[in-house]
Amino acid sequence: MTDRKEFRDLASPEEAHEIVASLDIAPKPETVPIDDCRGRVLAERVDAGIDVPGFDRASMDGYAVRAADTVGASERDPVVLPRVGTVHAGVEPDVSVEAGECVEISTGAVLPDGADAVVPVERTREADDGNGGIAFETAVAPGDSVMAAGADVAAGERALGPGTRITPREIGLLSALGVAEVPVRGTPTVGVVSTGDELVRPGEPLDHRAGEIHDVNSYTIAAAVEEAGGEAVLYPHAGDDYDELERQLRTAADDCDLVLSSGSTSASAVDVVYRVIEERGDLLLHGVSIKPGKPMLVGRLGGAAYVGLPGYPVSALTIFRTFVAPAIREAAGRPESERATVTGRLADGERYGQGRTRLMPVGLVADGAGETLVYPVDKGSGATTSLVDADGVVEVDADTDYLAAGERVTVELFSPDVRPPAVLCVGEDDPLFARALDGVREPRYLATGTRTGFRRLRDGLPDVVVASGPDEPDAATAELAAWTREWGLVVPAGNPADVSGLVDLADADVDFVNRTTASGLRATFDAALDEAGVDPAAIRGYERTVRAHESPARTVARGDADAGLALRASAAKLDLGFVSVGAERVRALANPDRADKAGVGALGDALTGLSGLVADLPGYEDA
Amino acid sequence: MTDRKEFRDLASPEEAHEIVASLDIAPKPETVPIDDCRGRVLAERVDAGIDVPGFDRASMDGYAVRAADTVGASERDPVVLPRVGTVHAGVEPDVSVEAGECVEISTGAVLPDGADAVVPVERTREADDGNGGIAFETAVAPGDSVMAAGADVAAGERALGPGTRITPREIGLLSALGVAEVPVRGTPTVGVVSTGDELVRPGEPLDHRAGEIHDVNSYTIAAAVEEAGGEAVLYPHAGDDYDELERQLRTAADDCDLVLSSGSTSASAVDVVYRVIEERGDLLLHGVSIKPGKPMLVGRLGGAAYVGLPGYPVSALTIFRTFVAPAIREAAGRPESERATVTGRLADGERYGQGRTRLMPVGLVADGAGETLVYPVDKGSGATTSLVDADGVVEVDADTDYLAAGERVTVELFSPDVRPPAVLCVGEDDPLFARALDGVREPRYLATGTRTGFRRLRDGLPDVVVASGPDEPDAATAELAAWTREWGLVVPAGNPADVSGLVDLADADVDFVNRTTASGLRATFDAALDEAGVDPAAIRGYERTVRAHESPARTVARGDADAGLALRASAAKLDLGFVSVGAERVRALANPDRADKAGVGALGDALTGLSGLVADLPGYEDA
Repeated sequence: MTDRKEFRDLASPEEAHEIVASLDIAPKPETVPIDDCRGRVLAERVDAGIDVPGFDRASMDGYAVRAADTVGASERDPVVLPRVGTVHAGVEPDVSVEAGECVEISTGAVLPDGADAVVPVERTREADDGNGGIAFETAVAPGDSVMAAGADVAAGERALGPGTRITPREIGLLSALGVAEVPVRGTPTVGVVSTGDELVRPGEPLDHRAGEIHDVNSYTIAAAVEEAGGEAVLYPHAGDDYDELERQLRTAADDCDLVLSSGSTSASAVDVVYRVIEERGDLLLHGVSIKPGKPMLVGRLGGAAYVGLPGYPVSALTIFRTFVAPAIREAAGRPESERATVTGRLADGERYGQGRTRLMPVGLVADGAGETLVYPVDKGSGATTSLVDADGVVEVDADTDYLAAGERVTVELFSPDVRPPAVLCVGEDDPLFARALDGVREPRYLATGTRTGFRRLRDGLPDVVVASGPDEPDAATAELAAWTREWGLVVPAGNPADVSGLVDLADADVDFVNRTTASGLRATFDAALDEAGVDPAAIRGYERTVRAHESPARTVARGDADAGLALRASAAKLDLGFVSVGAERVRALANPDRADKAGVGALGDALTGLSGLVADLPGYEDA
Repeated sequence: MTDRKEFRDLASPEEAHEIVASLDIAPKPETVPIDDCRGRVLAERVDAGIDVPGFDRASMDGYAVRAADTVGASERDPVVLPRVGTVHAGVEPDVSVEAGECVEISTGAVLPDGADAVVPVERTREADDGNGGIAFETAVAPGDSVMAAGADVAAGERALGPGTRITPREIGLLSALGVAEVPVRGTPTVGVVSTGDELVRPGEPLDHRAGEIHDVNSYTIAAAVEEAGGEAVLYPHAGDDYDELERQLRTAADDCDLVLSSGSTSASAVDVVYRVIEERGDLLLHGVSIKPGKPMLVGRLGGAAYVGLPGYPVSALTIFRTFVAPAIREAAGRPESERATVTGRLADGERYGQGRTRLMPVGLVADGAGETLVYPVDKGSGATTSLVDADGVVEVDADTDYLAAGERVTVELFSPDVRPPAVLCVGEDDPLFARALDGVREPRYLATGTRTGFRRLRDGLPDVVVASGPDEPDAATAELAAWTREWGLVVPAGNPADVSGLVDLADADVDFVNRTTASGLRATFDAALDEAGVDPAAIRGYERTVRAHESPARTVARGDADAGLALRASAAKLDLGFVSVGAERVRALANPDRADKAGVGALGDALTGLSGLVADLPGYEDA
């Protein structure tokens, strides 16, 4: 066994924040064209260099006059003035207004010399004087319908301060001031290096036998870097070629303000990082007292800052958001308002025993009263689905060992626009239900099985439970829709083992693959075995269970089993043989507390179109 | 006078919303690489095509065993098993685990055949058996420290639904599933054409005499298009060359899903738009009963939708946000959550007389109790500073003719991350104060003069009033800081008219330029004239007033006046001559109700550094 480094003297989360904040990753300010500055942050104060408008400007279509000439004018007794010319917007006036004269003027045009007001055209008419004179039906005061030079913003005035985030509105003011090149805070460049011999970029094939998996962290962390206002630079992943890792760390440190590596907190990768840091920088922190993510490294690599993130995606992203994103936002000058919190009640108790601060990923759902329920999402450190099943994180003190159901907690949302799902569905994994969700905005479907659905319903969590099989909920529910699905045994195409029914599984040379006990289909299967008098213990592989509805069929398809518990729809989709055993009813059951939720209504509407969905799925029928 | 089109039969805002929504501007879905999909919206459901993980995977560093072999193991009485090999992550196991054996295994590696659990290395030690055996100090159950194939997400499961906004978290799941090319909603292409002979792109020089102004709408609307999820295409502005406008509308209609023009609702431009619409499309709407923005056009131009926006920037952006942005967001599949509202109390009463729905731009400020005060921002339709002085819009019914002070209103924020300014300062335009604000996050400074500051203080609006001159506030205030500024007469360099003091302005051949009466400096000037026995009526140009502190000096600098009321600092900045008259005290006075506001504290801190600021400003002294 190689010498494994231990993480002693863990830093507290507060120390880790301070150390990361002390890394100066702010690049030099730069200048960008105005059509490329949206979302950037002003590096310096912008004072107005010109008056806006730069001249006394007509703000209506009408006639430029001397206000004194309109005294006493009314609709009944208009003042008639000869029109001595016309001024259009964008053209220098070739006429002035003397006492007793008027000049036609367009909105935006320069007020001609001599005039001090504009009378809107609606308050005038052509006079009957035969000379093209204009009859004024109202008196005006000096300055009426005129925007004076500098009235909007005057040269020398403070227009925008340093640190201002540039939105379309600031772009409007910068345009008005003629600022075509905008001084902005630099964008910190963040190199992303992921390590691990088992990693394969998405799009390339995986060798499952060699334990290959797709590289999740590179694109995820790169996207999170950009969300925080940095520019991500992806480096090819280094595998376990440590010379290569060393080269890439050095290159990234030369090119970037901050280098992030993930997965490099494993023992042997750490050696490489140590080596590079010893030669070229400082190690400032090794290990934080936090879960997930204890093995975090912080240091300097030459001119760049360095943070080593954990390898598991949820841990990597959580540590990134907690410690690194604030530093990137600060360097980019982005306001902290991008973080947002909500409070809610825990749907269920949760026990801890770590002695470390815990960042618990949680999902949210609005209960019938519109209050937010919070539930932990923990599918294990390696799970990537936790990323999308969670809405934010609850920070639990190192001293807290138990949070009770109903306790109020504060959730830091992943982003301010996170909202609880419109409808939270828990229960049986069913392809028809999954399709129905396509017609609903922002649903969430935790397809963890009928029994799990009923259990969470007891906690008051889901809006809707999807159920199949003989079990019934212990609470009252309202049926939104029901359908049947044909189930049986999936076998290789041509049914080479000649399986004809359940009895052929017992004491036979057939490797079977089952579903987990949370599945309603598994309960239906068990009941059918009982009725057929088949002893489960006589089925080879009865205890071999896989989680999702299509998993047994896929196991058979790749030759790892001779028969599996499946739906006709799965067998048909994968071009496998199918031995029908029966049909089971599937129901979408609403939590009565949530009957009025808009998302439940939308789901109900989507499910009224069942017949359309059923047509595409062999073995499905509208019940 | 050319024939002016009247806007009869105005549509209601609701009708306008419906008509714009009926324009189908959604482009075809497309496929983008995973490293370019952040912020996009999934066009279709993504089901898992593979199991994740694709194999039974060790989730800890340790030893792969048969769980049954560890029964009874404890620290005191460990079970010792011979180690028969090692499996690393990313490598196919070349060994299996038979009964009574163990295999060293790394996190992420494939569980070798025969094993059903992993014992973490921390719960083991090297045995003293001299054969390199491993002593297990704990018993484990089948599945412990193993993530089963498909446990994260199983092939065939629904992973992400259509309409999902892609954030780093979804990118994580897509990566895990190996989805390198992501099916997303298309980005609507929006052409932006602005018209008006007086418009000059920012960066090019303006001819003020010809009434030229910078083109504000092009970049502002383009940025707003991109904020809403569209792709903006800027077309060169057409001036009043209507053949050119016609050509550009046709080109834009060929290239884009939606064409926006601004300023083209003027009478003669409308003729062109009509002509193009008549030939190639339909006019669906002409005029909405709303202020600002009545003259809105909606129609079709061949395959593209068309919306004509008003020419004034605030009107154009307001109409865009209200009617057009929702259609772009819908087409891009962006969630509505990007709109956000707050409620607050009106700081002052507001009267209306329009008979049209009014979209009133408003600013926000938190009062001492943390409640939101709302105040109208209306600097006239042509003002671009209203864009940045406002935080959102209050929709006022056509039937409402009066909103009372204290009335509760709902403000639609310009974006969800808008927050009230940290500190709202109203009052004297002072360059030292403007510089001090550089040290404060998110301040707002309405430099409308001392008198305006005192008046708004009576309404309870500002956090801080900047005051100079002899006037005193009628309410109690807390002085944050005070300084003095030297003032006098700015004259051309070399003082050609040989002005030596106030008395030289009277009955002399000197064209003077004054400040507006709201200015504290003007009050100081008036008091000095009185003391010097100078009759204001004897000063040529006494009534000629300009608004900002630097404006008289700029007027003198460009030769439009012989002397002006100014600060020594302004004369020095512009290299002009200066005749000193006196020094006036400037004070930053906090609203006592707001003493505890963080922004007031931050401003107070910034002002304690006065001596540094004073050093850069000739004539300034720390008082």
